[in-house]
Amino acid sequence: MLLNCDMGESYGPWEKGDDAAVMPLVDWANIACGGHAGDPDVMARTLALAREHDVRCGAHPGYADRRNFGRVRREGPVDSLIHEIQAQIGALQAIAKSLGIVLHHVKPHGALYLAMMDDEALMVRLAEAVAAVDSSLVFVVQATPDRKRHAASLAHTGLALAFEAFADRTYAADGRLQARSNPSAVLHDPELVANHVQSLLQGVVDTPGGPLAVDAETLCVHGDNPAAYAALTRIRELIPRVS
Amino acid sequence: MLLNCDMGESYGPWEKGDDAAVMPLVDWANIACGGHAGDPDVMARTLALAREHDVRCGAHPGYADRRNFGRVRREGPVDSLIHEIQAQIGALQAIAKSLGIVLHHVKPHGALYLAMMDDEALMVRLAEAVAAVDSSLVFVVQATPDRKRHAASLAHTGLALAFEAFADRTYAADGRLQARSNPSAVLHDPELVANHVQSLLQGVVDTPGGPLAVDAETLCVHGDNPAAYAALTRIRELIPRVS
Amino acid sequence: MLLNCDMGESYGPWEKGDDAAVMPLVDWANIACGGHAGDPDVMARTLALAREHDVRCGAHPGYADRRNFGRVRREGPVDSLIHEIQAQIGALQAIAKSLGIVLHHVKPHGALYLAMMDDEALMVRLAEAVAAVDSSLVFVVQATPDRKRHAASLAHTGLALAFEAFADRTYAADGRLQARSNPSAVLHDPELVANHVQSLLQGVVDTPGGPLAVDAETLCVHGDNPAAYAALTRIRELIPRVS
Amino acid sequence: MLLNCDMGESYGPWEKGDDAAVMPLVDWANIACGGHAGDPDVMARTLALAREHDVRCGAHPGYADRRNFGRVRREGPVDSLIHEIQAQIGALQAIAKSLGIVLHHVKPHGALYLAMMDDEALMVRLAEAVAAVDSSLVFVVQATPDRKRHAASLAHTGLALAFEAFADRTYAADGRLQARSNPSAVLHDPELVANHVQSLLQGVVDTPGGPLAVDAETLCVHGDNPAAYAALTRIRELIPRVS
Repeated sequence: MLLNCDMGESYGPWEKGDDAAVMPLVDWANIACGGHAGDPDVMARTLALAREHDVRCGAHPGYADRRNFGRVRREGPVDSLIHEIQAQIGALQAIAKSLGIVLHHVKPHGALYLAMMDDEALMVRLAEAVAAVDSSLVFVVQATPDRKRHAASLAHTGLALAFEAFADRTYAADGRLQARSNPSAVLHDPELVANHVQSLLQGVVDTPGGPLAVDAETLCVHGDNPAAYAALTRIRELIPRVS
Repeated sequence: MLLNCDMGESYGPWEKGDDAAVMPLVDWANIACGGHAGDPDVMARTLALAREHDVRCGAHPGYADRRNFGRVRREGPVDSLIHEIQAQIGALQAIAKSLGIVLHHVKPHGALYLAMMDDEALMVRLAEAVAAVDSSLVFVVQATPDRKRHAASLAHTGLALAFEAFADRTYAADGRLQARSNPSAVLHDPELVANHVQSLLQGVVDTPGGPLAVDAETLCVHGDNPAAYAALTRIRELIPRVS
Repeated sequence: MLLNCDMGESYGPWEKGDDAAVMPLVDWANIACGGHAGDPDVMARTLALAREHDVRCGAHPGYADRRNFGRVRREGPVDSLIHEIQAQIGALQAIAKSLGIVLHHVKPHGALYLAMMDDEALMVRLAEAVAAVDSSLVFVVQATPDRKRHAASLAHTGLALAFEAFADRTYAADGRLQARSNPSAVLHDPELVANHVQSLLQGVVDTPGGPLAVDAETLCVHGDNPAAYAALTRIRELIPRVS
Repeated sequence: MLLNCDMGESYGPWEKGDDAAVMPLVDWANIACGGHAGDPDVMARTLALAREHDVRCGAHPGYADRRNFGRVRREGPVDSLIHEIQAQIGALQAIAKSLGIVLHHVKPHGALYLAMMDDEALMVRLAEAVAAVDSSLVFVVQATPDRKRHAASLAHTGLALAFEAFADRTYAADGRLQARSNPSAVLHDPELVANHVQSLLQGVVDTPGGPLAVDAETLCVHGDNPAAYAALTRIRELIPRVS
């Protein structure tokens, strides 16, 4: 089970997260591409930091909406969204290339991720768009009970897929995440997180509708505040870093 | 002598230039990358238009300053500028890739182009940055009396260079362009342009200090207004399209 | 019946519309505020042009989304939208003030206008926000069969209201505009526009469901292309300018 | 001696400074207007916070350059800069108005402030622009040995002026601030700051060229990090809040 974490979410003079502390603890960095967060300088220093810690770098494109941090769903032409996401991936890819780094994966961010999990046609469009830019990229999708159907729908893209579970989020009966509006949506206590992760490692998650199978290769973790960092440290004890 | 032309300088709902009319007449399209102009949709449709007419596509990155169309020199950290330009090239490159197009060249835009012609250290940094992203790109530089020195200074980047002359601009005695503030800086009359181009084809340009040798492989032309389009059509009579 | 027209929709180096030609023909200019279009320079020159022709100036705020020209509905917190709209009005107001111009009205733009016509609670929030900035502003709302209800709902704001009809748009049976996706939504032929306007002047509009009463004080006209300009000129023959 | 402090420098999801802690300690808040920092939501909540603590609100306009936080000097047409600054002031003014707050002052930010202190013609243009928007605003200028000349040059604007000294910055022999590149430019130790402030309260500042008279009505303080906050608290002991 590999740990993936959102990184590079600062912007110009504004810092967000403690990438220097978190980077050594994770396997994959999902790096903001200037859409919801990040800018070319932040991309460059986040890529360099990842390289220093042998962390694989992925693009974390999102709605081009810094003010809402890409967390508000955007209407508009899908073609336009596709071009935007390709441009974001390309921006990161070029800076990565200049640092001798080959991008490893793409994971849509925030409201775009939720939109694609709600709308398989959008998921397919996004995956096709990623494959058209670079077919060697791994595409990250949430591990839900629809995993097999998603895999079938995306097969023609040729992309390797990585299905992910969430280390600090509770699940609804249908295998989706509890909405953040739900007070128990986010686990803060490191021991609760540890229990949740141990369950996920066995391929099961507790839901209000009973235990549910979750088949994931990667675990999304956060480290952007002291509680999250403590939880991440605890998770690393359960899942030793391999590389 | 190949004709290069700035393209894709629309933005969102705003159109600029008549790319559909101009594209069939040129050899290389310098496509705006969302810095001084353009956006991912404009990039995509400009790339597709170029492909349709067998025109080679290049990146035309500039200062990230749409409001001034990249025509005002910007201060600030050079590293930041370099990352910005790499991100712009990468954005265009990813969309090009998704359309099956391999980018051919990079030509800095506007005030950035002038800044690099004034400051060879910046020219070198830009070329190194381009080479680090993709060493197969051709780098476009103005053909001045400093051509040989520029070529030597850029040799270590490994980039192929293309030196360009300007079809509709008059030259100063030092081989630089007359400043736009000079009323005679831009040639509008198609016959004056034709005479100027015929001279350039013979490797000479008239300047207030007498004739000057200009050694160029490519000619920058404009077609973004009726007069420019008429001049471009006239130039094409002098320089038949090869491909 | 006063003619209102959208103006100041250029941006930086990009021109849109022919404000110089249209301005002398209208009574009220709805000036973009840097959200969907415009920038401080465009605002200043549009305000100055309106003053020259004794045209009243209004703010035309919209979603802060130049790339979509404010024509795509945006989700997100209403408070945030309200602050955005107030900031846009204030930006125009300050530049107007510096030119000795007092703003006369506010008309929401594009998708925001449609959103408020679909959602009276939003209309009320917008009107309250306008009143809180300047209670002497006239608030422009579409004249529909709901006119009286809207007037009642907005009465507590103390704002003067101006209900508007559309000179070049066909109407649905419910008194709303035909969607632009409908091929007959926009009238292009000046004589068709003239007939439509003459009908509106008599307080009636043809709809697929039969004639419908439309009670309007102002007529929205466009002049942003040759056909629209011809129609506008024809309308001015029917409705002589008073001032 | 009144304390003024930069506030409202967060942006969208990014926080900067601890306005809640600092606000009760200052007399005047210089609130970012969406140019170098801030956005309409940040403006609204900063204005509300100031009102809660009876702090006077001023506009803190700057170069429209969030990525550099307004700290890089920008070239370009002065008229364009003037319109930009007026638009920023107006944006804040409208939101303030909607909260029942009357703006009290304007203080240019960052590189724009330095540019105006270097170029009195620009200072005059800025003051005229402010006066044209609202002649009741106080205009903040650095207290240097040129105070009298500045006052004379700005007299025709009719603006009240407030000359400011800097609580945590060391001075050059000419009465300007030591450049930030100078390691001793910023005072961090609260006791050093206290000594510096006590000297300023007596109208004198130490410089490498000996003591220099500084005639100021307001003191610029910072509280955007723990050391600055400690220094601010110490300053408040020396200068009790009056209101």
